[in-house]
Amino acid sequence: MSSTITAAVMVEPGKIELQDFVRPEVADDAFLLKVQEVGVCGSDKHMYLGHSPLKFPVIPGHELLGTVEEMGRVVNDQMTVIGGPLSPGDRVTVTPSSKGCGRCYNCIHFPHKPALCPNRTVYGFATCVYPPYLFGGFSEYMYVHPRSWVFKIPETLSDTRATLIEPSAVATRAVERAYAPGIPHIGEGYGFGKRVLVVGAGPIGLLAVAALRHSGAGTIIVTDLSQGRLDVAKRMGADIVIQADGELGERVKHVRDLTDGVGPDIVMECAGVPAAFKEGLELVRRGGKLIEVGHYSDPGATDIRPHVVCQKEVDILGVWAYPPLQFQAALSFLSLCTLPLEELVTHRMSLEKLEEAIKITGTEGVFKVVIEPYT
Amino acid sequence: MSSTITAAVMVEPGKIELQDFVRPEVADDAFLLKVQEVGVCGSDKHMYLGHSPLKFPVIPGHELLGTVEEMGRVVNDQMTVIGGPLSPGDRVTVTPSSKGCGRCYNCIHFPHKPALCPNRTVYGFATCVYPPYLFGGFSEYMYVHPRSWVFKIPETLSDTRATLIEPSAVATRAVERAYAPGIPHIGEGYGFGKRVLVVGAGPIGLLAVAALRHSGAGTIIVTDLSQGRLDVAKRMGADIVIQADGELGERVKHVRDLTDGVGPDIVMECAGVPAAFKEGLELVRRGGKLIEVGHYSDPGATDIRPHVVCQKEVDILGVWAYPPLQFQAALSFLSLCTLPLEELVTHRMSLEKLEEAIKITGTEGVFKVVIEPYT
Amino acid sequence: MSSTITAAVMVEPGKIELQDFVRPEVADDAFLLKVQEVGVCGSDKHMYLGHSPLKFPVIPGHELLGTVEEMGRVVNDQMTVIGGPLSPGDRVTVTPSSKGCGRCYNCIHFPHKPALCPNRTVYGFATCVYPPYLFGGFSEYMYVHPRSWVFKIPETLSDTRATLIEPSAVATRAVERAYAPGIPHIGEGYGFGKRVLVVGAGPIGLLAVAALRHSGAGTIIVTDLSQGRLDVAKRMGADIVIQADGELGERVKHVRDLTDGVGPDIVMECAGVPAAFKEGLELVRRGGKLIEVGHYSDPGATDIRPHVVCQKEVDILGVWAYPPLQFQAALSFLSLCTLPLEELVTHRMSLEKLEEAIKITGTEGVFKVVIEPYT
Amino acid sequence: MSSTITAAVMVEPGKIELQDFVRPEVADDAFLLKVQEVGVCGSDKHMYLGHSPLKFPVIPGHELLGTVEEMGRVVNDQMTVIGGPLSPGDRVTVTPSSKGCGRCYNCIHFPHKPALCPNRTVYGFATCVYPPYLFGGFSEYMYVHPRSWVFKIPETLSDTRATLIEPSAVATRAVERAYAPGIPHIGEGYGFGKRVLVVGAGPIGLLAVAALRHSGAGTIIVTDLSQGRLDVAKRMGADIVIQADGELGERVKHVRDLTDGVGPDIVMECAGVPAAFKEGLELVRRGGKLIEVGHYSDPGATDIRPHVVCQKEVDILGVWAYPPLQFQAALSFLSLCTLPLEELVTHRMSLEKLEEAIKITGTEGVFKVVIEPYT
Repeated sequence: MSSTITAAVMVEPGKIELQDFVRPEVADDAFLLKVQEVGVCGSDKHMYLGHSPLKFPVIPGHELLGTVEEMGRVVNDQMTVIGGPLSPGDRVTVTPSSKGCGRCYNCIHFPHKPALCPNRTVYGFATCVYPPYLFGGFSEYMYVHPRSWVFKIPETLSDTRATLIEPSAVATRAVERAYAPGIPHIGEGYGFGKRVLVVGAGPIGLLAVAALRHSGAGTIIVTDLSQGRLDVAKRMGADIVIQADGELGERVKHVRDLTDGVGPDIVMECAGVPAAFKEGLELVRRGGKLIEVGHYSDPGATDIRPHVVCQKEVDILGVWAYPPLQFQAALSFLSLCTLPLEELVTHRMSLEKLEEAIKITGTEGVFKVVIEPYT
Repeated sequence: MSSTITAAVMVEPGKIELQDFVRPEVADDAFLLKVQEVGVCGSDKHMYLGHSPLKFPVIPGHELLGTVEEMGRVVNDQMTVIGGPLSPGDRVTVTPSSKGCGRCYNCIHFPHKPALCPNRTVYGFATCVYPPYLFGGFSEYMYVHPRSWVFKIPETLSDTRATLIEPSAVATRAVERAYAPGIPHIGEGYGFGKRVLVVGAGPIGLLAVAALRHSGAGTIIVTDLSQGRLDVAKRMGADIVIQADGELGERVKHVRDLTDGVGPDIVMECAGVPAAFKEGLELVRRGGKLIEVGHYSDPGATDIRPHVVCQKEVDILGVWAYPPLQFQAALSFLSLCTLPLEELVTHRMSLEKLEEAIKITGTEGVFKVVIEPYT
Repeated sequence: MSSTITAAVMVEPGKIELQDFVRPEVADDAFLLKVQEVGVCGSDKHMYLGHSPLKFPVIPGHELLGTVEEMGRVVNDQMTVIGGPLSPGDRVTVTPSSKGCGRCYNCIHFPHKPALCPNRTVYGFATCVYPPYLFGGFSEYMYVHPRSWVFKIPETLSDTRATLIEPSAVATRAVERAYAPGIPHIGEGYGFGKRVLVVGAGPIGLLAVAALRHSGAGTIIVTDLSQGRLDVAKRMGADIVIQADGELGERVKHVRDLTDGVGPDIVMECAGVPAAFKEGLELVRRGGKLIEVGHYSDPGATDIRPHVVCQKEVDILGVWAYPPLQFQAALSFLSLCTLPLEELVTHRMSLEKLEEAIKITGTEGVFKVVIEPYT
Repeated sequence: MSSTITAAVMVEPGKIELQDFVRPEVADDAFLLKVQEVGVCGSDKHMYLGHSPLKFPVIPGHELLGTVEEMGRVVNDQMTVIGGPLSPGDRVTVTPSSKGCGRCYNCIHFPHKPALCPNRTVYGFATCVYPPYLFGGFSEYMYVHPRSWVFKIPETLSDTRATLIEPSAVATRAVERAYAPGIPHIGEGYGFGKRVLVVGAGPIGLLAVAALRHSGAGTIIVTDLSQGRLDVAKRMGADIVIQADGELGERVKHVRDLTDGVGPDIVMECAGVPAAFKEGLELVRRGGKLIEVGHYSDPGATDIRPHVVCQKEVDILGVWAYPPLQFQAALSFLSLCTLPLEELVTHRMSLEKLEEAIKITGTEGVFKVVIEPYT
C-alpha cells in the first residue's frame, strides 16, 4: 500500500492539477474510502467555471462509490451506517453533506435536513488545506469522518447504477415534492396517471423521468433543445418528447393539446435556465405544481407576473436539500427500476482526464461521465 | 335485435334466477350498455349470503365492461364522459355509483365523493322493480342513466385488464391513502422504498400489491392462509410471502425480523377478517399507517387496546368510497403496469352459471370470476 | 313596492351611471335579494380603471349582504342554501361565483372549485344586457338564480361584520394555504407560534392579520408604506409593524433580526405590487412559505432568480379561487374573532356616490367603503 | 446553600418518601435546576398505582418550572436552549424526554421525535439509583444533563401558566394532528369553523378545548361524567357540554342533532377510557378524524367493528410523543390565549404532601395540583 495518495485538486476555478498527499492516519471513528467510481456533476462544472463561492483549493467529487479500505475500531458506534454494520471491503456510498452541527437554527428546527446547516462538511466542496485533506471523491482515497452518513450498497446493485445514487436522491425527492398532496387540489390520484412535463433532459431530468415512470405517473412529456437527449428521454420512460427549438407559443399549444387544453398537472424545471422557469409557470395547469429542481447554481433572473401565481393557484416548490435518508429512496429506485438507467453513464475516464471530463459534461451526447481513479 | 333482455336477478339472498325484461325505450340522455364482461365481487357473495341490507330483487354486477349499443342524442351533453365524446360501439365502463343528489350534506361538502350520497343510484345494488329495471351488470344489457360517470377504454387495454378497473380503483386509492404524508412522519420517501405488509391475498390485496410495486414501494410482504394465493402474490410483485397458519407471535417476530425490528411502514388490511385488523395494529411500526380496505361488509368486531393507537402514534385510515376520477388512476395503472395482472382472472362463465360463480368466489384457486353474458 | 329598480351600471371603464330596470318576474327557482349593504372591492376599482377584460355594461358589487325579498316556491329544492331552509326576510349573502357548468375539465376534476369554471356566472362581473339584468350588488335588488350558493347569516352577527364575509373568505383561505403542512418542513406547529410577515395592510392584508391572530399564529409582522394603515394593523392583531419607506436592505435586516436571523416562516403577499412578491421571496426563510394572495389583477411583472426558489426550498402558493364553503370558514371567523373587525368599514355611502366610493378606495384612511342602496 | 437536597422518592408503587441526596457536583455541560413548581400528571398517578413498568426507585415529576441555580461553563455550547443563551437565575422548563441516542432506528429515521428512542432519559421516570440521582421534578433541585432541551420562559408569562407547558404541548399537538389535511376530505377550512367533540374534561381535554378555541375551531362540544368538569369546560371555550351519564344512544342522537345529523368533523378522545374510543368511532362523521390522545397508559381493550373504520373512511390518529419543539407551540398558546387557563391549577401543595396530591388528582373539583418544593 502506497504511502501517498493522488487526488485531483482544483486549485482555483479553471485550474485542476494532480497532487500527492501523505496517506493520513485513520482515527478510531473514521475510515478511508478507496474510491471506485465518482460521477461528474453539473455542480463540478459550475465550480470549474467559477460560479461557486468556495474556498479553494478543493478536491471535488461528491457522487461517490467506493470500498472501505481502512477502518477505525469505533466507526459502527459513531457513524450512521445504513444497511448493517460496516466492515473493511464493504462497497458503500457517503452522502455529500455530513451531519449538521446540531446547534444552529436549522439543525434544531430541521434535524432531518443537515444540508441546511452552514457548519456541516460537504464532501467534494470542502477546502483541502487542513489535514486530513482528502474530503473529495476525485482521488484515490477519501477520508470519511465520524459525522457521516454511510450507505452500504446491496450486492445486487451494479456499480454503474450505484454511481447514480446521488442524482437519484435529487430526482426522487423532486418526485416526492410533486406528489405530496396540497390542500385544494384533489379528485385525482397522487400520481397514478398524473401528467407531467419535464423541462430539460440532462441527468437530473432523465432520472426524474425514470423515477416518475417507476412511481406510477401517467403521460410524461419532455422538452429539450437537443434531439439526442430527447431520444434518451424516451428510453427512460418518456411518452412524448418535444424539441424546444421553436416558438414558445407553439410549444404551449402543443403541450395544451396533449393535456385536455389545460396544461400538465406537474411541471418539473430541470434545465437550470431562468427562461425555463418562466415557461414552466406558463405551461402548468391551474392548480398544478411547478417543481424547481434545476437551479442549484445561479445563472440569473427571469421576469414573471405574480398575477399568474395567484390566478393559477399554482404550487411552486423548490427542491434543493434532500434528507440523507433520501439515499434509501434512491437505492430502492435504482434497485427496482426496470428501465435501462445504466445508459446514462456515457463516458468513463481516469483521474488524469478530470479536466476533460468536466469540459464535456453537459455537451451533446454526454450525460454522466464517471471518473475511475484506478484505471 | 331481440325485444327482450335476459338478466340474472337475485330475488332474495341465496336465490338467483334468469328473468326476461322488455327492452326499454332509451331516453335522449341515456344509453344502453351491451355487457361484455363483468367481474364477480366479494360484495356479490355477501349479498348472496344475506349480509347486505338491500331491497330485493336486485340485478347484481358492478365491475362493468361493455359497449355502447343504443344511445340517446344528448348523452354527451348530459353525462360525464371521460376520454372523449361517446359514440355507439365504444367500449366503456361505468362507475358503480352515479352522481349524488347534489343537495344532501355530503354532496355539498364532498362533491367529489358521490359514493357518500344516500340518494345516489348504485349499479349492481339497486332494486329492479321499477322501469327501466336494468341497473345491474349481470345482464345482456344495462341501462345507463344521465347522472352516470362513463370512462372510455383505450384501445390498447385488453378486455381482461379493463374488467379489473373497479377493484383497481379501490386498490389504487388504498395506495394513495397509504402514501399521503401525515404531519409527523418524515425523513423518508412517500413511497420509494417504503416497506409494506399486505394482509390477505384476495383480488383487492393482490391488486394492491401490484399497485404498490407499480408505484415505487420497497419490500412488499404478504400474508395469507393459502399458499396458492401467496404464489400468485409473488407474481404480482410481492418480495416475501408468509403463510399465516401459525401463531401470531411467530408471525410478529418474522415480520419484525424483516423490518429492522420495528415493523412495516404500512400495513394494508385486505382480508376483511376482524382479527386481521387487530393483527395489523400489532404489526405496524410506531408512526406507521394501517390502511383498512378489506371490510366493505361487516363480519363483526374485534377487540383492540386504544393505548396501542396512542402509544404507536399510528394513522389508521379507512378506504371505502373512491371518487369517480379514481377510475382514471386505475386506467393508468392497468395500462402501464408490466406485471401479469391478467392472471387474476381465473375463471370465465356464462350468465347461467352466476350462482356457481358466486359460490366459488373466494375459494382456493379462484381469484376473479368474470361473467360473459354472450358466451 | 316600486315597479322599477335602480342600479349603478358601469357602462364602460371610468363611467358609472344610475339606471332604472323593470322589476323582473321571479322564477320558481330564483329569488330577489333586497340589497342591504355591499362592500367596494379593489377589483371594482380595477374594473373602473379598465384593467379587467369584461364585457360591459356591468352592474358591479360582489361583497353582498341583503334580505330575501321575493322568492320562488322551489328555491329550497334547487339552490344550495347553507344554514337551514330559506324564507322571505332572511338575511343572507351569496357567493360571487355561481356553481360551475359541471361539464368542463375543471368542473369534472375540481367540483369544489366552481370559480375555475369558465362558464359560471359571477355576480358583480356579469354583463347586464340580458334579462333579468340584475346580477350585481350595487343595486336596490339583485336577482339570484338557481345555481347559486346562499348562506344565511346568523342573528348574532352584525351587518357590518357580515359585509366582510367575501374578503374574509379570501383571507381565511390564504391562512389555510399557509398552514397546510408540506412534506419536508416539520418539527413545528402548523400554526401555533408560527412567525408570519404580512406585506400590505389593505383590507385583505388586515383580515389576514386578524385571521392569523384568531387561529393561533405567533409573531405577526406587517409592512406597508402608510403608517396609518400600520396603526390599524396593530388593532387587528399585528405585533410589529414596519413602515416600508426605506431601503429593502434595511427591511430585510430588520425582519431577520426579529426572526432568529432566518426570516419568517410564512410571508403573505397582500399588496398586489409585483415588487412585493420579489421582496417576499427575499425575506421568507429557507423552507418557508410565500403566499401570493394580492395579485387578483395583473399590474405587471417582476424579476426573480429561480435559484432562490430552488436553494430556499420555498413553497410559493397562489390563492385565488376559494371553494364556496369557504364562506362557512369566514362566517366562523367573523362570528368568533374578538378583534374589532368592524373598524375596517371606514365609510358608508349611498348608491349615487359609488363613483366617489371607488375613487377613494385604496387611499389613505380608507379601508372598506360600504354602499347602502337604501340610504 | 445547603449541602443536601430533599426529593420525594417513589420507592415502589404506592410508597413515597422524602429522601436527602448529597448535592451533586455540576459538570461543565450540565446545570442544577432549582425547582419552582411542578404539576402532578395523570401519569404520576398511574405510576403510583403500579400501572407503569418502570425500574424503581424513581423521583417523579416532569411538568417542570424552575430557575437555573448552578451552571457549567459550556452549557450554552452543549445543550439545546431555546429563547437565547442561558444564564444563572433564568426561569426555564425542560422537556421530559432528553435527546435520543442518535443511533437507533427511530433516532435515524425520526430525529425530531426523541421520545421514540428507547435509550433516552426521561425526567420524572428515570430511576434514581445512579449519580447524580436527581432526575425528577418533585425535588428541591433537579440535575439537567447536556442532552436536554431547555426553554427559557418569557417574562410576560406567569408561573402558573408556565407550569402548564407540558400538558399544553400534548394538547396543541393533538390539535395539529386534527387539523392536518388528509387527502380525501376537503371543501372546508382546516379548522376555521370545524366542529369538534372533546370526550373527557380532564386537564388534557380542557387544554385541548382552549387550544381549539385559540386556533379557530367552530362549535366545540364536550362530554364528561362530571357536571363540575363541564362547567370548567365552558370557561375554557366549550360551546355545548353534555353530561355523559345517560345512554350512549341518547348521546349519539344529541351530538348528531348538533351537527347536521352527520356527527362532528373531529372527535378527540381525552378520557383515557377504552369505551370512550369506541364511542368516538361511533360519533365521528364519515370522513372525519378521531384523535386518540387519552391513552398514555393501558387500561385495557374495547371491541370495535373494522367495517366502521372502512365504511366511514375515518382517520384515526394516535398522539403520544411530541417533538421537543412542540414546547414552542405550547409557549405561544400559553402566552397568547385569552381564556382563563390559570383556573386549571386548582391546588398547590408542598413536597411533603405529594402523596395526597397524587391521590386527589383526577377526583371531582381537582384539575391540576402543583407541587411547590419551597413552600
